[in-house]
Amino acid sequence: MSYNEIPLGKAHRLINTGATVLVTSRSGNKNNVMVAAWQMPISFKPPLIAVGIGKARYTHKLIEKSGEFVVNVPPMKMLSAVWYCGTHSGKNLDKFSLCELNKIKAKKVKAPAIEGCIGFIECRVYSSPSAGDHTIFVGEILSASAKEGLFDEVLDLKKAQPVHHLGDRFFCTTNAIKEVK
Amino acid sequence: MSYNEIPLGKAHRLINTGATVLVTSRSGNKNNVMVAAWQMPISFKPPLIAVGIGKARYTHKLIEKSGEFVVNVPPMKMLSAVWYCGTHSGKNLDKFSLCELNKIKAKKVKAPAIEGCIGFIECRVYSSPSAGDHTIFVGEILSASAKEGLFDEVLDLKKAQPVHHLGDRFFCTTNAIKEVK
Repeated sequence: MSYNEIPLGKAHRLINTGATVLVTSRSGNKNNVMVAAWQMPISFKPPLIAVGIGKARYTHKLIEKSGEFVVNVPPMKMLSAVWYCGTHSGKNLDKFSLCELNKIKAKKVKAPAIEGCIGFIECRVYSSPSAGDHTIFVGEILSASAKEGLFDEVLDLKKAQPVHHLGDRFFCTTNAIKEVK
Repeated sequence: MSYNEIPLGKAHRLINTGATVLVTSRSGNKNNVMVAAWQMPISFKPPLIAVGIGKARYTHKLIEKSGEFVVNVPPMKMLSAVWYCGTHSGKNLDKFSLCELNKIKAKKVKAPAIEGCIGFIECRVYSSPSAGDHTIFVGEILSASAKEGLFDEVLDLKKAQPVHHLGDRFFCTTNAIKEVK
């Protein structure tokens, strides 16, 4: 399973449909993975993305300490892992091992990426404004990679099958692409 | 075509799938509508959502002046209007009239909502952190409404058919809901 780097200026297209993502972080020897349905690209120049992380989350602490994180885009076939990771804290659990998520070494940051994901975006914290009970972690994109065959200018949705969250226990994926003429 | 108010605490579920939205604003006698693919809910308590708006956009000026905006969720059948609104500035054009978008009076803000949309969320600016070439307008949700029959705890995707943007001229909608057991 090989991943190819994609241009930083197009990296936001990995998450532009608004898919739910797995955020990985690492501080010291502790790795963690959490789910974030609240994410968006936020700047072209410089290339930035934003992720909303609850202030009480363990990942919040790890990102604050390390100043880095990776946004991984899981496919629908990882939905049970997505659900588990979104409903359990990694403070005292190794969710990678429990969900059989294999780590991939990232190129620019110490936090790991997740094998089997559609792609992943490696970020350094650019700013972290507070918004109610969450922090908006704005990440400067340092590197982005997509799984071989899944990204050519935009995602190949038929093959990629990203996860989208409606709320509660309800999820969906996207269907065929429509091109505006 | 009737709209029902939905609880503020569940309003974020109108945009939780990451759909592309139409942001409406008004300052003085000027109304405008623009497209934003970059949006996310950002807090439960208080209920907040965030929208990324390019600093050069006309809507940016109107929101700065008025401190208010409405996030409208268009269905796929409005895709040509979405495309037009995303590729033309409203500074010297009336996009409502050109795209045949009918305004609905919002309940709590002066900016109009758009008839035919799946639902809309009325916001007052809570904060507006800068992030590269965009501003993150964080909006406190003052009221939210969904079209009759399209929202019951979560969106009814089969009927709602929200628009999702991949990048460039490529769009898609979501498919059947999957419930995690």
